[in-house]
Amino acid sequence: MRAKELMDKNFVYLNCDDNVVEVSKVMEEIRRFTCPVVNDNKQLVGWITSFDITRGLREGNEKISEIMSGYEDISTVHENDPARKAVILTANNKFVTVPVLNDDNQVVGMVRACDIVELLSELYDIKVVKLYKAMQNQLKGVTWEELMSASALVSKKTTGKKITPEQYESNIKDSTFGEAIWATGGLEKFFAGLISVGEMVIARRVGKARK
Amino acid sequence: MRAKELMDKNFVYLNCDDNVVEVSKVMEEIRRFTCPVVNDNKQLVGWITSFDITRGLREGNEKISEIMSGYEDISTVHENDPARKAVILTANNKFVTVPVLNDDNQVVGMVRACDIVELLSELYDIKVVKLYKAMQNQLKGVTWEELMSASALVSKKTTGKKITPEQYESNIKDSTFGEAIWATGGLEKFFAGLISVGEMVIARRVGKARK
Repeated sequence: MRAKELMDKNFVYLNCDDNVVEVSKVMEEIRRFTCPVVNDNKQLVGWITSFDITRGLREGNEKISEIMSGYEDISTVHENDPARKAVILTANNKFVTVPVLNDDNQVVGMVRACDIVELLSELYDIKVVKLYKAMQNQLKGVTWEELMSASALVSKKTTGKKITPEQYESNIKDSTFGEAIWATGGLEKFFAGLISVGEMVIARRVGKARK
Repeated sequence: MRAKELMDKNFVYLNCDDNVVEVSKVMEEIRRFTCPVVNDNKQLVGWITSFDITRGLREGNEKISEIMSGYEDISTVHENDPARKAVILTANNKFVTVPVLNDDNQVVGMVRACDIVELLSELYDIKVVKLYKAMQNQLKGVTWEELMSASALVSKKTTGKKITPEQYESNIKDSTFGEAIWATGGLEKFFAGLISVGEMVIARRVGKARK
């Protein structure tokens, strides 16, 4: 995924000569704590946050150019950069927004922390039952009942608690990948558990074939 | 994970009688676009954003109580709620911050979008090679070479491109779980690929044992 696929295009350009009071109203209206400042060619020249605006209002500044951060202080990503780059910038610097530029240094969008949260959390929302369906699909010929029965056994081995295949099925029906990771203690452990289910199913199948 | 394990404790309480100009300076200093307003017992009674502050400064309001949102308009989580609840609130409402309350309605922390991004992106940063190590660990007796050789075969089957086990190993050495998910087209497909590697390794082992 590239930055341009993650970015929000619903933002407002400011100009150096814009009036601080007017900009404060616009930012309240569109509910954006940060805005890019551009030149006539829509190229990034500065950056405004609500902190600059409150300071400017207090000190009676008139023009945006008097209160903005300069180009050299702005962290940006290119539209074709991996979306990941914007995620790392946001996480490491506690940004709420990272501007996205094209080859001509024009601002084409903004990657927002809340949009990243939405994107990343979608992964966590995948139902565990879907991963099991993918596993069943991959291990051709394995029945759903075999999978659940192997899972119940693996679960008992790991947790020490007895659980029926039916109970297991009911558990994973509603649980998400995110919950499963927290519950098992991390991606690697969750993954190892699934592998061990697959292994048991295959071993049983091979056992049957030999008889 | 609970909300209290994810929340930021580095925040500032405001009071209803606080002066708007003074608060604007504090928010600039601590670089927070949002602040909780509490009573003498530290119980949440209102909410201030930088938008309220810019409006207040423009209109000459004096006290925080004149410009804050009321308690009924604030989305909160309890400190013992799953962290996931704050994530969903943030993603669905594009929040930058969600206040965390205890049983007495006291504000004990704030969950911030940028902190969520940091947390969620850690998962994506897990190296694929670690998942392979977990798989090898699970499939006892399987050598690393067997795993890489099976992976190269599965990769050729999926992508149509020939790849040596050595090339495959070098690829996964640097790639992360996040990259692998984007590359394969989603968690389920990535997972199915790994299962099929495991399956091939087991099948080969069984084949050898039979000879």
